[in-house]
Formats: sequence, C-alpha cells, structure tokens
Amino acid sequence: MAHDPEAAAPPPVNRAWGGRFAQGPAEALQAINASIGFDHRLWRHDLAGSIAHARMLEATGIIPADDARAIVAGLEALARDWDAEGVPIEPDLEDIHMTVEAKLAQRIGPAAGRLHTARSRNDQVATSFRLWVRDAIDAHLARLEAFVRALATRAEAEADTILPGFTHLQVAQPVTLGHHLLAHAEAALRDIDRFREARRRLNRCPLGSAALAGTGFPIDRDMTAALLGFDGPTANSIDAVSDRDFALDYLFCAAQTALHLSRLAEEIVVWASQPFGFVVLPDAWSTGSSIMPQKRNPDAAELVRGHAGRILGLLAGLMATLKALPLAYAKDLQDDKEPVFTAHDLLDLSLAAMTGMLAEVTFDRAAMRRAAGRGHATATDLADWLVRTKGLPFREAHQLAGRAVRWAEAHGRELAELAPAELVAIDPRLEGAEAAPLSLEASVASRTSFGGTAPQRVRAAARAVLARLEPAA
Amino acid sequence: MAHDPEAAAPPPVNRAWGGRFAQGPAEALQAINASIGFDHRLWRHDLAGSIAHARMLEATGIIPADDARAIVAGLEALARDWDAEGVPIEPDLEDIHMTVEAKLAQRIGPAAGRLHTARSRNDQVATSFRLWVRDAIDAHLARLEAFVRALATRAEAEADTILPGFTHLQVAQPVTLGHHLLAHAEAALRDIDRFREARRRLNRCPLGSAALAGTGFPIDRDMTAALLGFDGPTANSIDAVSDRDFALDYLFCAAQTALHLSRLAEEIVVWASQPFGFVVLPDAWSTGSSIMPQKRNPDAAELVRGHAGRILGLLAGLMATLKALPLAYAKDLQDDKEPVFTAHDLLDLSLAAMTGMLAEVTFDRAAMRRAAGRGHATATDLADWLVRTKGLPFREAHQLAGRAVRWAEAHGRELAELAPAELVAIDPRLEGAEAAPLSLEASVASRTSFGGTAPQRVRAAARAVLARLEPAA
Amino acid sequence: MAHDPEAAAPPPVNRAWGGRFAQGPAEALQAINASIGFDHRLWRHDLAGSIAHARMLEATGIIPADDARAIVAGLEALARDWDAEGVPIEPDLEDIHMTVEAKLAQRIGPAAGRLHTARSRNDQVATSFRLWVRDAIDAHLARLEAFVRALATRAEAEADTILPGFTHLQVAQPVTLGHHLLAHAEAALRDIDRFREARRRLNRCPLGSAALAGTGFPIDRDMTAALLGFDGPTANSIDAVSDRDFALDYLFCAAQTALHLSRLAEEIVVWASQPFGFVVLPDAWSTGSSIMPQKRNPDAAELVRGHAGRILGLLAGLMATLKALPLAYAKDLQDDKEPVFTAHDLLDLSLAAMTGMLAEVTFDRAAMRRAAGRGHATATDLADWLVRTKGLPFREAHQLAGRAVRWAEAHGRELAELAPAELVAIDPRLEGAEAAPLSLEASVASRTSFGGTAPQRVRAAARAVLARLEPAA
Amino acid sequence: MAHDPEAAAPPPVNRAWGGRFAQGPAEALQAINASIGFDHRLWRHDLAGSIAHARMLEATGIIPADDARAIVAGLEALARDWDAEGVPIEPDLEDIHMTVEAKLAQRIGPAAGRLHTARSRNDQVATSFRLWVRDAIDAHLARLEAFVRALATRAEAEADTILPGFTHLQVAQPVTLGHHLLAHAEAALRDIDRFREARRRLNRCPLGSAALAGTGFPIDRDMTAALLGFDGPTANSIDAVSDRDFALDYLFCAAQTALHLSRLAEEIVVWASQPFGFVVLPDAWSTGSSIMPQKRNPDAAELVRGHAGRILGLLAGLMATLKALPLAYAKDLQDDKEPVFTAHDLLDLSLAAMTGMLAEVTFDRAAMRRAAGRGHATATDLADWLVRTKGLPFREAHQLAGRAVRWAEAHGRELAELAPAELVAIDPRLEGAEAAPLSLEASVASRTSFGGTAPQRVRAAARAVLARLEPAA
Repeated sequence: MAHDPEAAAPPPVNRAWGGRFAQGPAEALQAINASIGFDHRLWRHDLAGSIAHARMLEATGIIPADDARAIVAGLEALARDWDAEGVPIEPDLEDIHMTVEAKLAQRIGPAAGRLHTARSRNDQVATSFRLWVRDAIDAHLARLEAFVRALATRAEAEADTILPGFTHLQVAQPVTLGHHLLAHAEAALRDIDRFREARRRLNRCPLGSAALAGTGFPIDRDMTAALLGFDGPTANSIDAVSDRDFALDYLFCAAQTALHLSRLAEEIVVWASQPFGFVVLPDAWSTGSSIMPQKRNPDAAELVRGHAGRILGLLAGLMATLKALPLAYAKDLQDDKEPVFTAHDLLDLSLAAMTGMLAEVTFDRAAMRRAAGRGHATATDLADWLVRTKGLPFREAHQLAGRAVRWAEAHGRELAELAPAELVAIDPRLEGAEAAPLSLEASVASRTSFGGTAPQRVRAAARAVLARLEPAA
Repeated sequence: MAHDPEAAAPPPVNRAWGGRFAQGPAEALQAINASIGFDHRLWRHDLAGSIAHARMLEATGIIPADDARAIVAGLEALARDWDAEGVPIEPDLEDIHMTVEAKLAQRIGPAAGRLHTARSRNDQVATSFRLWVRDAIDAHLARLEAFVRALATRAEAEADTILPGFTHLQVAQPVTLGHHLLAHAEAALRDIDRFREARRRLNRCPLGSAALAGTGFPIDRDMTAALLGFDGPTANSIDAVSDRDFALDYLFCAAQTALHLSRLAEEIVVWASQPFGFVVLPDAWSTGSSIMPQKRNPDAAELVRGHAGRILGLLAGLMATLKALPLAYAKDLQDDKEPVFTAHDLLDLSLAAMTGMLAEVTFDRAAMRRAAGRGHATATDLADWLVRTKGLPFREAHQLAGRAVRWAEAHGRELAELAPAELVAIDPRLEGAEAAPLSLEASVASRTSFGGTAPQRVRAAARAVLARLEPAA
Repeated sequence: MAHDPEAAAPPPVNRAWGGRFAQGPAEALQAINASIGFDHRLWRHDLAGSIAHARMLEATGIIPADDARAIVAGLEALARDWDAEGVPIEPDLEDIHMTVEAKLAQRIGPAAGRLHTARSRNDQVATSFRLWVRDAIDAHLARLEAFVRALATRAEAEADTILPGFTHLQVAQPVTLGHHLLAHAEAALRDIDRFREARRRLNRCPLGSAALAGTGFPIDRDMTAALLGFDGPTANSIDAVSDRDFALDYLFCAAQTALHLSRLAEEIVVWASQPFGFVVLPDAWSTGSSIMPQKRNPDAAELVRGHAGRILGLLAGLMATLKALPLAYAKDLQDDKEPVFTAHDLLDLSLAAMTGMLAEVTFDRAAMRRAAGRGHATATDLADWLVRTKGLPFREAHQLAGRAVRWAEAHGRELAELAPAELVAIDPRLEGAEAAPLSLEASVASRTSFGGTAPQRVRAAARAVLARLEPAA
Repeated sequence: MAHDPEAAAPPPVNRAWGGRFAQGPAEALQAINASIGFDHRLWRHDLAGSIAHARMLEATGIIPADDARAIVAGLEALARDWDAEGVPIEPDLEDIHMTVEAKLAQRIGPAAGRLHTARSRNDQVATSFRLWVRDAIDAHLARLEAFVRALATRAEAEADTILPGFTHLQVAQPVTLGHHLLAHAEAALRDIDRFREARRRLNRCPLGSAALAGTGFPIDRDMTAALLGFDGPTANSIDAVSDRDFALDYLFCAAQTALHLSRLAEEIVVWASQPFGFVVLPDAWSTGSSIMPQKRNPDAAELVRGHAGRILGLLAGLMATLKALPLAYAKDLQDDKEPVFTAHDLLDLSLAAMTGMLAEVTFDRAAMRRAAGRGHATATDLADWLVRTKGLPFREAHQLAGRAVRWAEAHGRELAELAPAELVAIDPRLEGAEAAPLSLEASVASRTSFGGTAPQRVRAAARAVLARLEPAA
C-alpha cells in the first residue's frame, strides 16, 4: 500500500479498534482474520448501505449536513473509481468496511469519521451481505426464467416426439419428449417460487441494529430501509446481527436448483452415450480429449452434475458453522460469505451452460422412437385394456399382461408385434387384444388425464408453464 | 405370519409383480428392498389416499360402484383395526402399499384387485408421503407456536431485566433479557413462515400420474385432490413421481429450526455453568450423574444442540441421494422416508423439550446484572456521548473511550466507577462524562431505536410477536 | 414393566443419580433423554465390559471376591437370558447401562451396587460403543473380502471379454471387462485397508477413565484392556470420555465403501438399461412393477446407490454434532449411536446385495463387443501408431487421427473399417495405417504396460488382488 | 494473451483436441469448463510430473534423447520463470496442463509435442493432484507436530494447576490444566496418525495409466514413480484415472483435525468470557470492535471454530460429487480441486493460529482454582472414600454423598467446608469423612490410575506425548 505511511511499521495497531490496544495483532491472527480477500465482492453494496446511512444521518440531523454531503459525495466518487479500476485489496485494512472507511478518510478527511455514528460493523455487514444475496437471487431468477422458456419452447416443438419413459432406467411406458422436458420445467418453477420466497424473507434491513442493542441516536430506520429497497427494518436488533437465515435460505434454494439441473445433466450424459444416442451435442457444446482424437465429451453436463454436489456441501458446511452459536454476533459468522459466493458462481455457470446446451442440442427422434419400441413399453396398456374391455380386476389383468410379455420375450418378440392367434394362444382372454393401444402413438395419445403425456396435453402444458412465469400480482 | 399359507414357500414370487417372473427374489434383494420396516408409518395416509382413489373410481364409473363401496368399507375397517392393534409388519409384503392391498384382499376378496386401477405405486407413494409430511409440518407448526408464546411470555416479564449482551461471548453492551429472548422468537417466526411456505408448495396431489405417464382411464384428479385436502393436482405426471422437493423442503425447514434451537440450547448450557450461573434448571429439567453425586446436567439442552447436527446431516444425505437421478421414478427415492421420519422425531422432541425447559427455567437476575457490570459494557455509551455532547467524529470518540477503558482496566476499575477528576485526568475532553449514560439502566433505557433493547420497546415487541403468530388472511 | 413395583409412581427419581434430587424429570426430558430405544443394541458389549471390569475389581481386591463372582455369574446369566428372549426395553431405565445394573440388582441383590466402583457411565459407554464398532468393522471386512473375491473371480473369467471403456460415458478405448471389474476391486482393497486402520486406531480401552479424571482406586487397566481384546488402555482420561473419532473413522470408512459401491451400482443400472443391455439381471435380482407387467428393475443396485447418499449424510451430521463441543463428556455425544447403527445396517445390506448380484449377473458379451465397435474407440491406437511408425510428435499424430475420425464419421463409417486407399486419401501419412492395431482385440492386447488392460495383465492382476486380501503379517 | 496470435479469433478450436472439431466451444461452455483459474496451483507438481515423464521417455527410448532433453530443459526454465513471475493464467488455455504444454511449445518448438506420448491428461492430472495433496499433508503434519509440542510444553508447566473438570459444562471433578491440554494432544496425535496413513495410501503413481487403458508404449512406470517419490505405480489403469479416494481421505483427515481444533477453540472462547476468565488473550491475539471501545475479542478462536464447519461441508460436497459416477474418468472429477484447496487454506490458517494463540495465552490459575472450588467437585471422592473406608457398595455411597451435597447446597456451603459434626448430622456413616480427599489438591493427587489426572501422571504423559511424535521406525 504505497500511499499509507504506517504500512511499513510491523504489525500496526488496527485503526478501527486500536484505542485500548498496546500491541498489534500476531501475523497468524491477521492472516486468519482478514476477509478483504473475499468480502471485497461486497463493495457496491457496502457503498450503497453507507450512502443510505449518511443520508439518514443528515435527514435526522444526527451529523452536520455538510459532513453528510461530503461523505455521500466521497462514497459516490469511490464507486466511480472502483467501477473503473477495481476495488483495492489491502490486507491490513482487514475487510471491505474498513477499506471503505479508510479510503473515504483519505479523500474527505476527518468528516469520514462521522459515518460510523449510530452503526456498527455488525449491522453494516449484515446489511451489505443481504443486499449482495438479494442481487444474486435476482440474477438467478432471470437465468431460471430463461431456462424455463428454453424448456417450454423445445417442449412444444417435441410434443409429439416419442421417447421411452424410464423408471429405474428401464423402459416403462412411452411418453413424449415434450412431456419429459416439461417435468424439468416444473422443477425449475418450484425453484423460482422458492427463490422468490427467500427474497421476500430476506428483505428486511438490519441497519440501525448497531452492535447488537440498537442505538440511542434518533435514527430513522424506515428511511434507510426504503432507500435500500427493503420492505422495512428488522424487528429485533440482537437477532438482526446474529441471523444468517438468509444465507442458508439462499444456499438451500441454490442447492435445490443445482440438484434439479444435475438430474437433467445426468440424462444428457446418458442420452449422449453411443448406446442411447438420443442427443447429439453440437461442437459448441462438446469437448475433446488430449489423447483420444475421436472423443466428443459432454463436459458441461458433467460439470453441472458435479457442481450440485459441491453446492449441497456448502450448505451443509455453513449449517454446521452456524450450529450452536450463542447470540449475538460471533466471528464465525464471517464464514458465511465464501460459501455463498462459491455457490453463486457455480450455479450461475450451471444455469447458463444448461440453458445454452438445451437450446442447441439435437434430439435424435429416430433413436428415441427405436428405443421406445423395445422393452414391451405398452404392457400397461394391454392390462388397462383388459380392465376396460374384459372387466378384469387390475391385478388379474396385470398378471395376464405379464405372462404375455414373458411369452414374447421367450420368442424374441416385442409385445406390440404379437399376432391375434398368438395372443389367444397365450390366453383366450387376450382375444381381440390386437385392438388395444399397443402402438407407441396410440399409447401416448390415450394418456389424456390432467398432467398426462398425450400430445395435446403437452402443448397446453407448455403454454401454461410460460404463463406461470409471471409473478402473482 | 401365521395367517398366510404362502409364507412357508421360500422365496415366493411377489404377488404384485409376479406375472413375468419365474423365480422369486434373492434373500439379500428382499432384505434391502423391503421398506415395510419403516414405511408402515404411512399407513393412515395410504388408507386415506386409497379411499379417495376408490371414491373417485366410483364417481367416474371406472369401477363398479359395488366394488368401490366394498373397497372403501374394507379400507375403513382396516383403519379401525390398525388403530387398535397396530399395523401388521410382514416383510414379504414388501411395503405398506402391498400390505394394504393384501389385507384388503383377505378381507373383501377379488374386488380388492380393482383398487389399483388407474394408479401405480409411484403416484401412490408420492401421495401418501406428501400427506405424512403435511401432517408433520402441521404438528411442528403447533409446537413452534407454543414455543414462540413461551418466549414472548417470558420476554414480557423480563423486559426490564439487565443481561450482559455478548458479542464474541465477550460482554459488549447491556441489553434486557426480554430483548434477548425475543431475538429467538424472531428466528422461530421465520421458521413458521418457512414451514408454511413448504406446506403450500407441497400441497398438490400426485394421484393420477400413475407410473409416470398419466392414464387413459377417465379419472377425476380434482376430486381426489379435494378429498385429500390438496389445493389441486400436480401439473406433470413425470415430475409428480420423480419429485421429492417436498421432502427436502421439509428437511431444510427442520434443519433451520433445529439450528435456531441449538443456538438457544448452547446459551442454556453456558448460562447454566457455575461461572455464569444465569439460569438454574429445576429438578424436572436436570439430570444427574452415575458417578458424581453433585451433578445437575442440562441434558435436554445438550441433546437439542446435538440433534441439530444430525438433522442437517439428514438433509445433506437426502440431497446426495437425489443428486443426478434421471427421471422418472427410481428406487433410490425409497431412501427419502427414513431421513424424514428421523428428522421429525428429533425435531419434535427438541421443540417439546425446549419449550418446556424455557417455561420452567429460573433466571438469576442478580447474577446477570453482576456480569453485565463487568467488562466496561457502557464504553459505547461514552463514545456516543462524546459524539452527541462534544461533537467529536465517532472514530475519535471511539479512540478516546478506548483509552478510558485501558486506564480503568490498568487501575482495576470499571468504567462506570470513574470519578470526574479521573476522567479529566485521562483526557480533558472527558470533562462531564460522569453524566453520560454509563449505568446499565441508563444505557439500556437509551436504546429506543426501532428493534432496540429499551424496555418499552421490548414490551411492545413481545405483543407484536404474538400478533404475528396469526397467519395472514 | 410388569415386574417393577416402582413403575407406577410417576415420574420416579432416577435411581442412579437420585441422591440430590427432590423431583423426577419432566416427561419431555425423559423422552428426549432416554436412549434405551436404540442403545439396547450395545447389550452384549456392555455385559462383556462389565464382566471384564468385575474380574479386574476382584483381581485387584477392590471389591470382595464373593461379590465379584456373584456379579460375573449374574451378568452371564443375563447374557444367556437376553440371547434367548431379547433385551428388555424399559424407558424409565434410561439406557442399556442402567438396564444392566437394574436387572443385575434384581438378580443378585445389593452386591450389584459394587459393580460401579471405579468406573462411570462415561468410560463405560465409550468402551461398549468401541466394542460394538469393532465388531461392525470386522463384519464389514468379512463382507468386503467376499466382495473382492467375487470381483476377482469374475474378472479372471472375463479377462478376454471386450468392453467399451468409457470416459465421460463416451466410448473411449476398448478395455476388457475383467480389467474393469478389477478397478472396482482396487477400490474395495482400499476400503479394507482403511477399515483395518480404523480398527487399529480404535483398539484402545477407555475403561478406568471414570467420569473424566481417572480414579483413585488401584485399578489394573491393562487387565481390562486385555480381557476385552484391546491393544492397551487409552492414554488420557479426559480424552477417553470425550473422543468419538472412532465413530467418525467408522462412518468415513463406511461412506467411502458406499461411494465405491454406488459407482458400480450406477454402472449396473446403466448397463441393464435396454439401450446398453450389457448385463441381464436374473429373476432373483430383479423386481417388478405394480403397474407395468413387463418391468425388470435393478432395485438392489438403485438402493445401493441411494444408500451411499444417506451414509455420507450420517457422517456429515455426526461431524456437525461433534463440532465445537468443549471437553469432557457432553450429552451431545449420545447422538453418536444412531448414525453409526443406521450406517452399519445400510452398508451391510449394500455389501451383501452387491456381492450377490455381481456373482449372479449375466454379462452379454456380444452386446459389449458391439458397443465397443462404435465410436472409433481405437483412434488413440492410430495416433500412437503414427508416433511409433512415422515418428510424428504425439500432438501432430493426435490431430491427424482426429481428422481421420471426422472423415469416417462424415461417411457413416467406423475408423477400423477404412480401406487403405481411403486412409491415404485423408492424408498421405496414413499410408499403411491399416496395419495399426485398429481392431478391438489388437488394441486391448497391445496395452501391456503395468496396470494396463491386456488380457495377460488382467489375469495376473486378478491373482494379485486375491493375494493382497491377506493382511500383512 | 498478448503473445498468442490466435487469441483474437473468437472462439478458437481448442488446440489439444481440435482435430475432429469444426467449431469452437460456446462461451458458457468455456466458462464452466476452464479450470486454470484454480488448477494453476498445481503448476509445480505438473512440471515435476512432466519432467519425470520426459526422463522416462528418454530412458526407454520412446522419444529421441535430444527431444527429451530439450523438453526437460524447457520445463525447468518454465519452473524458474514461474517461480519468479508467477504462473500465467490464460483462460483459453483451459487448464494448467495445456498451459504447460503451450508454453513449452512456445519455448522449444514442435519437440514439445512429444511430451504427451504415452500419457493422457487423465493420468497426468491424477498424478499432479496426488503430488499436491502429498505436499499439503506434509505441511499439515509439520504444523500438527508444532501444535502437539506447544500443548505438551504448556501441559508440563501446568501439571499442578487445578482446573475444574467439566462434563456437560458443569463442574464435575477437579483436574489439572496440564491433563486437560494433553487430552487435546491425544486428539492431535490421532490426526497425525490419520494423515500419515492417508499419505501412505495416496503414495502410488497413476502416471502411465494413460486415458484409462494403459498404453502400448514400452514405458517404465517404476521409474517415473521413483523419480516422483512414490512407493510404486498404481495397479489398475481404470481405477487410477477414476479414483479420488486420496482427495476424500485428505478432506476427512482435515475435517477431523479441524473438529478437534474447534473443540479447543470453543473452550478458549468460553474460558476468555468474563464470567469464566480462565484465559486472557494477549493483545497480539485479540481483536477489537469498531463500535465498542472496550472489546477484546477472541476472533482467531472463533474463526478456527467456524472453519471446522466449512471443512466438513467440503468433504460432504465432494463425496456427493463423486457418488454414483461411472468409471472411468468423468469431468465431475474436476470438482475435486477447489474443495481440497479451500480446506487446505482454512486448516493451515487454523493450525497456525491455534498453535500461536496457545503458546502465548495467559492462564489465570487463580480464576481456575476458584471455579474448581464451587460445585462440590469432590463429591465423587467422598463416595469413593465411603466405598474404601466403610465398605459400602458404590451405589449406596453415591446416594449418601448426594445427600451430603444437597445438605451443603441448602446451607450455602461447599461440600469440602463441612465440619465433622455436620457430616455426622447428615448421616452417622459420614463420621470421619473430613479425612476424605475432599480438597482439590488431594482429589487430584489421588487419581493415579494410568491416564489419570494426578500431577506426576501428567508430567510423565507430557514426555510420552513428545516421544510419540517420532514416526515408527
């Protein structure tokens, strides 16, 4: 730090809390304590919070108007500078809050010392971090909406495409690809709902809680809350500086979203394998191998899948960190930021990659249809037909259809290929079963129950999904 | 299983899916596969779901009305029997759904086979489990409300009680005990909010999604949803059988609640230690030692604290289980139940114990006040006074108050005890500082900002907390 | 509890620590505190520990020989009874230790009261639980060894079977199935190594540490340690009652093993899918569907996969529970048992199922070979041939082979099928490349480096794996 | 990247795997795929691995000696440059391996292309990362040994210092501070043992496994293993590129160590609180407050405590990432590095801070002794005396001592202060009990069992701990 004459003197007494200390911190303490290496990412939000606080101090007359204006102008100048040049990272300034204060003092002189009136780093960091997390949520919401749009768009286009529906990764019943893609859209819609809820719960302003007890200065907490876009101030000052629910809510929403993406990613990896061959990744979404010239690897899908593991670990880790902490502020709370920052970066990359990949992937409809035709996927339809047409109880019909499958398998045939005589030979009650919806198209078309896979259902559902993106009025 | 003649034949072909199988399952497969050992806890919900399904099958004419009524009557009879005698746990019946079906068949004969028309175990288990989780949420909500009431009641009574407010477990500023208790109430109110949200998101009925694709039978999903108290049917059949968000939402809400309880539990453990002595646990909430006759241990608080760790692990575990599962149903989803059941039991015990303990604990007000009087807890008040009275920038005032603390400490005194001459000797600007609110009562009374610890604020906040228990109309 | 005359008196003062208490525990305290519901599983180990302790008390003359013999005889009688009838579970006896003590007193009278001389429940439970975990490790080791044997046996038989080696689930290079199976054996050998290490680290006896400080009685800790098969006593009494590393070591070993099994399980699920078709599960290892008559589901593999998630969560949970606990014993430590018991049961089932399934699964060699022939799996062999024969730097050879793949793909051909003229047409340097080991067999046979997939390597490796099962002398 | 003429062309086809690709990667794929932002930390190990590989390629004659020497010289030159200037981080070079290869090519020309003969990034990254983790373990081992030395040194000096031994954070029995510190040393010794084991298990060289199948080049794996300090090559090539056990082993060892530190950290936080006052942190290990001038916060201890939570989350996260991955290499494995790097940094800081803090903290012996004198800490001694002197069964003695405590408490006295007459008044069997070791010193001195707290035991144990630091020959 070229411009700080004290920097050479090892180890300096910290200027923010030095009054009582005869000696500076040990090197190892400084190293473990400094957070500027990561919390510099809060700089925009810390400046915004400080500007709001200064305006309130002016409006309430707690500090002189001239000083307040100088503070605001100074903070705004810092914002301009840092936008252009980046925020300075100087370890002996400990954290972003001290960095802001020190740089402000360099710029406007002693008046900067009035900014910390009626607040503490405890309420300040809680405010800055909430603002950061709120922005992160908004960014994820935008990405999630784009993802849902991509899913719904492709789903509508594939409303008639036959896909083998799997359970246990075994061919179960034919479905449409559009229906399958909309299943992922449903999950993403829940993610959106969850993030919106987390945002609402987060949106209370801790500023004015001071160290933990509130303050005797005649502050106006409604004013700072409003200036910063909060719905109002937090209700209890001890809780306000101790609470990190908003960070856990965020991490949980992120983990849920990442888990959902990981399920789609797994499908892309499996579908892109040569034996499946349901999807072909374009060059733009494939990577190669340093040794095997023929490889086209679905790296992005694998990383999306892997990131889900990491994000859930970040959630578990922060939960463990917060467990059993007595009130009010404890330094352990400083461990809240890196997990959130890392989760944000991983999820942001994951959402962008998955949306891009999904939009550009080629579906091999023939391969899908071919696969759906193996595995006797319409055996349920035969059983249902026996119920409907012959009045058998479902359990009996199920047994009978199972025997037909066993027969077909033993003869190297698919159920849908059996001739009338063969059906009757298996069991006389199968007479006429060739009229059952044993073809893939007939099977899919028949599933018209609400939420079912029939193409017209899927088309309507795709439109409904888009409509649900709009937040409730 | 005395009443099942088939039980002797080892190993039997499973009656629900046996049509295609020539041979029964290996012993190790049966052992790992059977879920009746834990999913019997779903029995009430599975019967309720089956009754609703049968009524719908009757109303839509999908099965004969006589059969439907026999089914409903049979299921109601099972409910009565099992209420009295407990649910039968027979490993070769695999799970609660097969148990219900087999026992119904024993009771009403082949008509029982019609119950499984137009449904699958996949949508059935998703429905039963949602119903169970919904009940669990409702039970937790009731306990949480009782907990908040207990906190608010004691908080109002202790609105004037001086407690040392800690940060870093160091005496920071005096607060009131009531204010501190209400900080925990805020956390619990967020838990309530979160559980209510999870309940709303859960409250869609999967029934009718069948195996994964919906069904061709003309079912009425709105009817079953309504009969079971759901807000409506789920929108996509593949998602409906694959989705376990509701279980994760539940576990996250439970983990958050447990973390909050663990923070209070930690305080009780620390406060009950002899050096603190802030609380005395009555005999009813103490345990003793098998070797040390004098011990009074806060076991309940410790277990509440420990349980938080376990619940967050259950969440992490289920997340890991669900990660990267391809759609639709996979058997891994069977691993959703035990974590949820265990978390429920741990949280239910924790809430009951914490509420009971909190209601009956004795606060040692004298010990709290004594502790607040150590550690120069009103040094901030001195700094604030210098800002207000002498116009010093806060940073300068902070330095000056810090020096006064160092002087007091060096002379074995508390800041609040310094005489006017001593204050002036430290620094001339401290002239008159004996008038600053350096007493604990004056300090606390001064913090009247919204959310602050002043007694009148606390009394109002206690009432506001109770009002917020009422759900929004 | 029919045979306990005190049971009717609600709520009784606990007989083990009642001297100081005027009132019994609250109901919610009793409910959360009682561990007999799960720690009854320690009964054999608790009896063994008590018998060793009594023998030592006799040998050292700390208690009269007659009393000691009565105690030992009484404990042995309890062991016989409980072996036959099961251990009694009576909630007001709190835990297994009190249950043993109470039942012994009923049987032999007041002499039972001498058993607790020079010990505490703190060292007692640490001892009993260590013994239980040691048995669990031994059981897992036996299962792991059977699993490795099954892998090595099948590997040797499949040393020549061509399997497409996948990276990113894309066909990469041909390997042999035997080689692939031995990769899983390597992982299992590490699991064995890890469990053995954990066992060695665990195998110190806490008995004699008493409550936390040791004892003034002239006990012989070496004797009790030896009687219980420990390598010696623990070195520090405070550590001995606070330490749960052995439980975490156990859970970590279990989680690692489960993760390894989950990777094989995933492969079985994918390989059993119709598009892959590499394995066919026999009826004994398949399950069916309640709705789809044709289904053959790999439930066991899916459950093994799912259990891995749960076990890692149990580890994370216990770690969180233990985090930041001050020494010495705290009641949170009671939360160590259920995670360990659950992990044990899940892993035991997983190992048994995986070993059984692996031994009986049918490999479809033709399907594997067919899949290996797609995807230009020998492109690396072409590049290596260019390096060896034409002296090209590998990077250039890799580029050239890549171009050949692109050409083949564009013409719907496999690399191995290209004619000499075609090769030259792609690039003159490919002249003679039809002699490169582009066939699957040639490719596999060429990889003779140590650890490589060449069949003779695999056969030797299978034998080496079996040899490594023997513990070091 | 000023010196790369291709960098301007957006988006370039990756030079390492470009042969088959017509188009470069999408921006979002590049962003999620690039690992150079973190894996640059492997640069020293990647260079070392490449040098060893080149030497082996020369020795076996696989590549020309001149080229091999140019490669080695070039790599050594890179090492010198990067030592001085740092490693270049250029996103379009993707990862550290491509960075090395590209920079080498710039320096020595086309011969660089021969370095990748007979290896793949899959075995290369596994080797580099193992080397990195091995170094990390060695660094932690050195720090752990310093920590144990600090504990043993202070323990010996405090072998006679009376400390209240706590269970449940309640005064249990008097112990010595030295004994308590050695309990933490035992835990650290287990951590050392565990890290050494992990190092042994890790120390096999994957190099030569190539992509997954081994190689047909006549490589000498023993030579590269020896050059890199490994105990030998890995045994199975598929396992070698798929296995990340060493990363999980590392994270588990780190998490265990961090948990142990967190328990000591919690004690420091509690002991430094004003009501306890057992320790005073020197200025060098205290931090202050930005608002409260009197504060001395134990930030380092709190961060050590918090970091334990994060590290266990990193373990859980990587486990979840690895769960259910099919063999061989998958890109998810790239997610192994950041958790390990982060855990390393957190643990390294934690060990340094804890060792420094522990060495310099001041113990307030008077405060400890005062606290030990409250809470009837010698009640067990009275019970034991009754057993030894009066022949009472322990249970009866325990009851009687419990009554004495209740009497003392009711009269506001400590047990150790009761007069002979008072003792007899409580119960005639207490006659002479004033001779029981009811003083703190007598109690402590009496606990001479192996592992007990008697001062001479503690002194011997401190020396034994130091002796155990030496690794077994």
